[in-house]
Amino acid sequence: MDELLEKSLLYDFYGELLTEHQRSVYESFVFDDMSLGEIAAEKGITRQGVHDLVKRCDKILLDYENKLHLVERFTNIKAKVASIEKLTDPIQTQDMDENNRLNEIRKLTEEILEEL
Amino acid sequence: MDELLEKSLLYDFYGELLTEHQRSVYESFVFDDMSLGEIAAEKGITRQGVHDLVKRCDKILLDYENKLHLVERFTNIKAKVASIEKLTDPIQTQDMDENNRLNEIRKLTEEILEEL
Repeated sequence: MDELLEKSLLYDFYGELLTEHQRSVYESFVFDDMSLGEIAAEKGITRQGVHDLVKRCDKILLDYENKLHLVERFTNIKAKVASIEKLTDPIQTQDMDENNRLNEIRKLTEEILEEL
Repeated sequence: MDELLEKSLLYDFYGELLTEHQRSVYESFVFDDMSLGEIAAEKGITRQGVHDLVKRCDKILLDYENKLHLVERFTNIKAKVASIEKLTDPIQTQDMDENNRLNEIRKLTEEILEEL
């Protein structure tokens, strides 16, 4: 998975477990693409302080995922729901009739419901 | 939602964030239906200690949900996937033809993908 997308997902799922200060610095660096120097000046901390905080947040978010695997669960479900969406589209499934498509959709829903 | 089901969901999602000791006592009391006295004897702690630990775990799990809302997100998605499954079943959707059902399914997948 693309590194920025992975960070976005981890932050989307677990970001609320960081402090407000951590979130503010982390967002500025990772998502708003500000430099260490800009953030340091804005927050009144050192560049090294910003760097350490960002690394620490990366680790905290990853530790949560390693325990809970919720990004992984959601990502798997999302892929299956996207497959279902594709099966509703006759242009993307020209060789299948409606009943075949409904059968495939049912199998996917059963798989998702087992995972949820 | 049924209280035990709610506790199960919270525990399923966030239980790994408790300590091993907390998990062991919590599972014995909430899911294995052991009494405070039985657990106290087994763990070598007081009945009051067991009681306090269970209450504290309930609070920890609920605090995570109040911050992250992941049980809520999953529950919403699950309901929509169950609706899709129903739409694949001709017996449960007698008045709808295949194309109507596929259209309804597509709408639901779009809603789910927006939430994921």
